[in-house]
Amino acid sequence: MQLHDFYLSGNCYKVRLFLGLLGLQAEMLNVDLPCGAQKHPEFLALNPRGQVPVLVDDGQPLVDSQAILVYLARRYGEAHWYPQDALSQGLISGWLSLTANEIHNGAARARVGLKFGRPVDLEDAQARGRQVLELVDTHLAGRLWLVGDQPTIADVAVYPYLALADEGGLDLAPYENLAAWFARLRALPGYLDLPRL
Amino acid sequence: MQLHDFYLSGNCYKVRLFLGLLGLQAEMLNVDLPCGAQKHPEFLALNPRGQVPVLVDDGQPLVDSQAILVYLARRYGEAHWYPQDALSQGLISGWLSLTANEIHNGAARARVGLKFGRPVDLEDAQARGRQVLELVDTHLAGRLWLVGDQPTIADVAVYPYLALADEGGLDLAPYENLAAWFARLRALPGYLDLPRL
Repeated sequence: MQLHDFYLSGNCYKVRLFLGLLGLQAEMLNVDLPCGAQKHPEFLALNPRGQVPVLVDDGQPLVDSQAILVYLARRYGEAHWYPQDALSQGLISGWLSLTANEIHNGAARARVGLKFGRPVDLEDAQARGRQVLELVDTHLAGRLWLVGDQPTIADVAVYPYLALADEGGLDLAPYENLAAWFARLRALPGYLDLPRL
Repeated sequence: MQLHDFYLSGNCYKVRLFLGLLGLQAEMLNVDLPCGAQKHPEFLALNPRGQVPVLVDDGQPLVDSQAILVYLARRYGEAHWYPQDALSQGLISGWLSLTANEIHNGAARARVGLKFGRPVDLEDAQARGRQVLELVDTHLAGRLWLVGDQPTIADVAVYPYLALADEGGLDLAPYENLAAWFARLRALPGYLDLPRL
């Protein structure tokens, strides 16, 4: 199993974290994002979207960090990571969509603007980021995990860019439920540290 | 089963389409988006994200159009819509993420700008829209469906806003593989017409 990876990317970290939680090893292949390696023809042949991470397992490429979590959970994970009943899968998928859109275009984009100097509408990204922090913090009141009573891939998907939100200029201090959930995630066996700048 | 719905929304159409393909009925409850009903307290109690569609089944709300497809497929659909093997689920989830982010912020946003008069960066949205049209058209070369050899929820998720892309000022004429795939989708039993403006 190989992971086409960039260390500082929260989406790549998300996959490395889940590999760690599952006790799996992958060969790490660095994709030099600052040099635009993800847009070179040989990388586009692997992932026409021009994005990291890409997981290659048994020669089969899988793109998109949320999709890789689904794949790894189904193939290698204990059932609680992605339970097979319709309701759990529906609820988890709702968090995967939130991660792909609102978190990507909020907390993650603010971090990319502030820390990588990419041109983003910082105010807009931070406003979206705060909305999601508020939403997730409120959802976690009285809950241990986002869906059900055990950790799922929803937690693994949502965690990285919320935990890194301070690097996008967002203040995490007001969110007590988030802080407690972060602590629960960090206590899981196999947890890996965040890729802080 | 109730669907909190807005007729012209491509995301709501996506769920209505899948209900049609599965031969299911739901009570339609109109959410008056032009009047901002999705931000009213009683709607936010149902969906704190303030978005349509919301499906309520057995009293349980499900939010996010991709998540609703996953739920309906697992609960009511034939296995081909969301096959249970890890690879199929991983590949399908990659298309669900593309729908949640790149299609939402591309073709769908361009349509919202042009047809609903909402303030969007039309040029940026159209550029993203064209990238995805190109990507999906290329992917469909030599394939009948996005994943595997039968229709899946990936097809149902990706289809609406690509088929409506002309309403966002995007020219669909160059994309022959897309046109053939649109025709295959439209020939499925239970297909419902697009909510054109």
